[in-house]
Amino acid sequence: MAGDRPAIPLSPPLKDELDIVIPTIRNLDFLEMWRPFFQPYHLIIVQDGDPSKTISVPDGFDYELYNRNDINRILGPKASCISFKDSACRCFGFLVSKKKYVYTIDDDCFVAKDPEGKEINALAQHIKNLLTPATPGFFNTLYDPYREGADFVRGYPFSMRNGVSTAISHGLWLNIPDYDAPTQLVKPLERNTRYVDAVLTIPKGTLYPMCGMNLGFDRELIGPAMYFGLMGDGQPIGRYDDMWAGWCSKVICDHLGWGVKTGLPYIWHSKASNPFVNLKKEYKGIFWQEDIIPFFQNVVLPKECTTVQKCYIELSKLVKEKLGHIDPYFQKLSESMVTWIEAWDELNPSEQAKPVPENGKPAKA
Amino acid sequence: MAGDRPAIPLSPPLKDELDIVIPTIRNLDFLEMWRPFFQPYHLIIVQDGDPSKTISVPDGFDYELYNRNDINRILGPKASCISFKDSACRCFGFLVSKKKYVYTIDDDCFVAKDPEGKEINALAQHIKNLLTPATPGFFNTLYDPYREGADFVRGYPFSMRNGVSTAISHGLWLNIPDYDAPTQLVKPLERNTRYVDAVLTIPKGTLYPMCGMNLGFDRELIGPAMYFGLMGDGQPIGRYDDMWAGWCSKVICDHLGWGVKTGLPYIWHSKASNPFVNLKKEYKGIFWQEDIIPFFQNVVLPKECTTVQKCYIELSKLVKEKLGHIDPYFQKLSESMVTWIEAWDELNPSEQAKPVPENGKPAKA
Repeated sequence: MAGDRPAIPLSPPLKDELDIVIPTIRNLDFLEMWRPFFQPYHLIIVQDGDPSKTISVPDGFDYELYNRNDINRILGPKASCISFKDSACRCFGFLVSKKKYVYTIDDDCFVAKDPEGKEINALAQHIKNLLTPATPGFFNTLYDPYREGADFVRGYPFSMRNGVSTAISHGLWLNIPDYDAPTQLVKPLERNTRYVDAVLTIPKGTLYPMCGMNLGFDRELIGPAMYFGLMGDGQPIGRYDDMWAGWCSKVICDHLGWGVKTGLPYIWHSKASNPFVNLKKEYKGIFWQEDIIPFFQNVVLPKECTTVQKCYIELSKLVKEKLGHIDPYFQKLSESMVTWIEAWDELNPSEQAKPVPENGKPAKA
Repeated sequence: MAGDRPAIPLSPPLKDELDIVIPTIRNLDFLEMWRPFFQPYHLIIVQDGDPSKTISVPDGFDYELYNRNDINRILGPKASCISFKDSACRCFGFLVSKKKYVYTIDDDCFVAKDPEGKEINALAQHIKNLLTPATPGFFNTLYDPYREGADFVRGYPFSMRNGVSTAISHGLWLNIPDYDAPTQLVKPLERNTRYVDAVLTIPKGTLYPMCGMNLGFDRELIGPAMYFGLMGDGQPIGRYDDMWAGWCSKVICDHLGWGVKTGLPYIWHSKASNPFVNLKKEYKGIFWQEDIIPFFQNVVLPKECTTVQKCYIELSKLVKEKLGHIDPYFQKLSESMVTWIEAWDELNPSEQAKPVPENGKPAKA
């Protein structure tokens, strides 16, 4: 390890309560750079594409690896809900994890540096985000009120200062921004160089484009909603896997009273994907989303939906009913949503019918 | 002028379309520091307190000054809606301005420096914020998509990328944060040192605590909603003037389809006000707001309210109806809201019954 690299901490936070999920088709050399931050944690590697290929993992990491044959063996006919030849397959890792928290990262994401040149421990920041409350009910103009040196500003209702549980922590990207194919084509040279030193809660009732590149979540709270849909091989669409999970999980978080944060931490996104290939994957999504987003903006889940599973099954029905007219794909997606929940409950039997935890968390210490 | 100060630009933006409104009880020496940025603009000074006192204004500034005698003379009996011995009197300046835009700033706010040590032209940043569209309908994770080096991220619906008109630009504060009295008492030494390099739109349907210290707005769009309420002398409450204007204007912006931005620019807030005095002013507000905020969160304005004035009159009725039970103060406030609109229409006759401009603005150049 290089002398200027941070040392591996003695007691890394949530060491035994968090899995790192990585979808990949290549050798995981990128982990070398993450070693000081990731090595204490357990990795779940989801190998996409040809299962006969061997993926090499740098020495010293604790991991389990699943390829398509494993997915088929473990899920049987339910394996149909897991995408193939698309990073959407990452959600299989969420399914087989046995931990309370998940962090997922793409294999073209490296350690970014903060404005002082210090390497950013993205995982540690996600953990901070997840372990402190969120404030979806009212906007705090000084951003995360639970952060050191910040607080709730004048006029923030005191009854709301306890916040609610944080279900999702959405991190950002320096260097290559997460643009769609048309924007990539128009601005091939644009790089994100702006380090915005903030974490904020996305308000209740507001949707956002969730990117799966650098994402943490409380699996025990929101795991069953983190289905990345049907993408890639045999599907008419790609690159909407994380968007799908983002829309569904946000609507469910809003319904169940949990928060979603975005902002820090940044990772360094190294390589822009091919915009021509992306355009082919995205083009249906680009016009479909014009209907999908108003659908999600207007979804009302009934009061009886008191667990994520119930919410998700209800959503699957609404998808069939309200989006089915767009394309037969949505019928298939709706059915896969149900299969996903069946698979989740099968692999996570102890979580079934788990009551929803209380929203309130203790106030800032 | 010091050699390292920025020069006054030759053609300052909106020079003839923007007034700077300053409420004060003291000599305006603070303007010296703002000279390079403010001198080209017209100032409206609202002198609070004893009208016989002379307020001195540094040489070279173009200004008009109103004291209480002027307010009484100009508004006659309607002057009752303008607060006395409270910075809420600043809204008189909004009333008498003839410009399309207003920037208002407190006299204890100085020029802040960005992380590179460069003095921040707060006014120029507010103008940028106001002249570019806002995006209240969907959250963009890379913040202001109209800023150089940024754009809409993957998954942002293309039909929403034109944005909507920006009505309000809410700037922030380095050094002394805008805390309520209890937080001031608990954290007397807390200073805001975090420069967050972002501007973002507060989503539709979300309320925020609007601070009047460093605030720009499109007076032609939202001016009649920028009433700072009844505070100070003879009133049971203080330090909720800007909050009141913030709640009312946000609800009206949401109804009429306009955007509110917060974030940059920062000013340097020099001196914490006395927390004991503040507590006395605030304490009723601290429990009243627990009812007021749910009220504003649930307000639905009828479709017939197609102008800010109509919206505001409707709000005044709802305030009487739904908040009147809290304290007789809300009856009086409701009546003052009506008086304010009457005064606005009297002083701004050409604006009456003005149709609401279209929401859409041209896309980013």
